[in-house]
Amino acid sequence: MRDNTFALKKLEQAKVWVREAGIFLRDNIHQRLEISQKSNFSDLVTNFDKKVQEIIIEEILKAYPEDKILAEESGKNLVSFDRSQENFWILDPIDGTINFVVQQDNFAVMLAYYEQGQAQFGLILNVMEDKLYWNNAHHVFCNNRELVYNPKELSESLLAINSMIYRKNFYKLTDFSLKTLGVRMLGSAGMAYADLLEGKIVGYFSRLQPWDYAAGGILAGKLGFVTKTFKGEKPNLTDCQYVYSLPQHLVGQLVEETDVIL
Amino acid sequence: MRDNTFALKKLEQAKVWVREAGIFLRDNIHQRLEISQKSNFSDLVTNFDKKVQEIIIEEILKAYPEDKILAEESGKNLVSFDRSQENFWILDPIDGTINFVVQQDNFAVMLAYYEQGQAQFGLILNVMEDKLYWNNAHHVFCNNRELVYNPKELSESLLAINSMIYRKNFYKLTDFSLKTLGVRMLGSAGMAYADLLEGKIVGYFSRLQPWDYAAGGILAGKLGFVTKTFKGEKPNLTDCQYVYSLPQHLVGQLVEETDVIL
Repeated sequence: MRDNTFALKKLEQAKVWVREAGIFLRDNIHQRLEISQKSNFSDLVTNFDKKVQEIIIEEILKAYPEDKILAEESGKNLVSFDRSQENFWILDPIDGTINFVVQQDNFAVMLAYYEQGQAQFGLILNVMEDKLYWNNAHHVFCNNRELVYNPKELSESLLAINSMIYRKNFYKLTDFSLKTLGVRMLGSAGMAYADLLEGKIVGYFSRLQPWDYAAGGILAGKLGFVTKTFKGEKPNLTDCQYVYSLPQHLVGQLVEETDVIL
Repeated sequence: MRDNTFALKKLEQAKVWVREAGIFLRDNIHQRLEISQKSNFSDLVTNFDKKVQEIIIEEILKAYPEDKILAEESGKNLVSFDRSQENFWILDPIDGTINFVVQQDNFAVMLAYYEQGQAQFGLILNVMEDKLYWNNAHHVFCNNRELVYNPKELSESLLAINSMIYRKNFYKLTDFSLKTLGVRMLGSAGMAYADLLEGKIVGYFSRLQPWDYAAGGILAGKLGFVTKTFKGEKPNLTDCQYVYSLPQHLVGQLVEETDVIL
């Protein structure tokens, strides 16, 4: 990507908005959490979730009233736009809501931006550690530290995997995981993508909504990871899909040894 | 336990030794790790592991030459002593060796002390976050912060569980885990016990060596958790056993709904 086509101004603004959301969350996390329930108890939504979403959406629309926004707590009417043409944002105000509620730790704010349908940048804020993962046109950073891509072989690596996938050997991915040094389950896509970018895990397999993988997929892609559905497609930024992120050099082995399709 | 029977002097010394080990590890972790293999690649031993063990054992024996020591890297000849009578220490120089090697994060130094066979204190140092968990005769602390025991019901909690146990529904514990909000796999008993003490998880199920559960079991017990084998016994501080730690009020439900015995 050429520098002069990269949305640098929006990146700098977005970093401020996400960091402000992080400050708000850290300042208020020890207040009593008012927990509401969505479809079930595993899908907790807090008043903080909604509040953070309101803050960031307001900032975006104040600066860019024409931009589209897809966010976890949005109604369906906000998500209908042409993902191949529009300038749009994908927001997860609190990723890892259960961790947020139970642990008050290990959760993230995530924001991704696409210009005329083209991925520009992803932001993942590890809120409690105040670590912001972001990319520009060329590189990926954690705060001011540039991250390097140095993925190892499966046999020398750890894997993050969704518990249901692991429990059921879904797509033979549990078998695949046994070729690694072990699995890690963190309960947050943002935490998993942060570990992927840091080289703490080599791959991530889960069932994800667009706001779960948008920022992580952009960041990981900028480093050299592939992000695809288990059926070999580019994730569609619309539906909940089975999605993985893995170094390019391990995709052949994945396709050969599991039911995941190239 | 009455204050005048508690090994307070040894506690203060042990805190210094463990913190010194932590400083050594943080100062040297980015050196190239020389990795050796024990029985298999999942059982990595590093030169750091051995170095930390040497340092701490030397300190203990310099101050208390009569004390016995059980440590992960010890030969068999060091582990034969009467656990019901002796003054002894149990040391894990680096718990979570794979995390240490792969992630350079999420590992612990653990040390436990027993006087005339009676558990006195446990120390768990989260090395990279420099958080020391410890207990005196009455309370449990993380650095200078006293920890409180406020375990929730299963349905509002997270569980840490060994991946093999989870994969195989061993003792029906995967079924049991499905009554919680989810499972977490951290790859380190020390990290799991730290999360248990902090209330971030409500229980922990794994296959553990004495040095994996000694410090954690003492600390958790001081707060109010039960630590037992899956066969209902007190762990014997000798063999590798299936061990759990859980709040007392959840043990009945565990025994009723799984193959774990009271």
